[in-house]
Amino acid sequence: MNNAKFIVIEGLEGAGKTSAIQVVTDWLTERDIQFIQTREPGGTPLAEKLRALVKTVDENEIITPQAELLLMYASRVQLIETVMKPALNKGKWVVGDRHDMSSRAYQGGGRQIPESVLQPLRNSVLQDFRPDLTLYLDVSPQVGLARAQARGELDRIEQEKIDFFIRTRNKYLDIANSEENIEIINAEQDMAKVHQDIRAHLEQYFGV
Amino acid sequence: MNNAKFIVIEGLEGAGKTSAIQVVTDWLTERDIQFIQTREPGGTPLAEKLRALVKTVDENEIITPQAELLLMYASRVQLIETVMKPALNKGKWVVGDRHDMSSRAYQGGGRQIPESVLQPLRNSVLQDFRPDLTLYLDVSPQVGLARAQARGELDRIEQEKIDFFIRTRNKYLDIANSEENIEIINAEQDMAKVHQDIRAHLEQYFGV
Repeated sequence: MNNAKFIVIEGLEGAGKTSAIQVVTDWLTERDIQFIQTREPGGTPLAEKLRALVKTVDENEIITPQAELLLMYASRVQLIETVMKPALNKGKWVVGDRHDMSSRAYQGGGRQIPESVLQPLRNSVLQDFRPDLTLYLDVSPQVGLARAQARGELDRIEQEKIDFFIRTRNKYLDIANSEENIEIINAEQDMAKVHQDIRAHLEQYFGV
Repeated sequence: MNNAKFIVIEGLEGAGKTSAIQVVTDWLTERDIQFIQTREPGGTPLAEKLRALVKTVDENEIITPQAELLLMYASRVQLIETVMKPALNKGKWVVGDRHDMSSRAYQGGGRQIPESVLQPLRNSVLQDFRPDLTLYLDVSPQVGLARAQARGELDRIEQEKIDFFIRTRNKYLDIANSEENIEIINAEQDMAKVHQDIRAHLEQYFGV
């Protein structure tokens, strides 16, 4: 075994994931730590095609919640097995833009897919594969969506009603408050303070 | 409730599924029974895109067995919920070119994905949705593949080694011998005899 770690950034649209990832990768670069970046859904040729399918509105067809869920896990298993595990095995850290917590929050919380469906799927896809640290950027849906809207057009999932995002955030918070290796960051603070919090957690988990 | 039924044709490549489906749809047409035809994976705009993904060889990436399995069930749940159930509810019969038995035979038998992974996925996708009759066309892999090869180029799954198809056929036979509403048809017989057997089973199950 080597010491490579898997760090995930999670949060609603507009939570500030992109700049948070930059803070993490800067921190790694400053320490001469090799890493790869991934995003979910996506991150392999197949998984990127699945990402396009779930993100795009098709006028002719409504994607059922369960098909959406299965596509997310198909993308995830392909990414874990063909990209993440090989990188970690070579000693490269992995910095993920979203991972399993997103499916639990969006499909479990937002779309209300029951645990009895989600849990067996998670077990079979993930087995014992878990992030070493998840940084959950917490914003209210109102603040997050206003930021996402200011950026441009919203994709199929981002077009959901506010109730969907309230359920998604509540599930994010439930998971973050009850499981290990997940840190909640108040992402409605000044960006400088958010970035300071991220660095503090990286030091706490991985600093020497 | 109405009386609409769901009939599935199953079998290895080269078993004669296409002409068997013709026999079934002729039988229905002769009786003025309305029906739709489906194929799996596929049968909806999303599911057809997934079909193309799993059937195509991508030089840059090997699809993991579990991603393949999840794509099959994503396609299936989309087809069941958006096409099959609505048709059956309107009194139209459904004639399926492959269904769940294919995933059990190819991914379970051929690719050796364990029951502990397959079973929870089947339960959550299918719930109590089952064919009223499955006609399994049994051929040896040698005979089936020779016929499929004579037809032209083989797709990604059809390019598997003979052992894969032997395991797939054995799983088909296991299921057919142990579950209800599945009939085994010897598809190495003369085509006229195969078609006669299909009609006999249709009469037996649905004749008046």
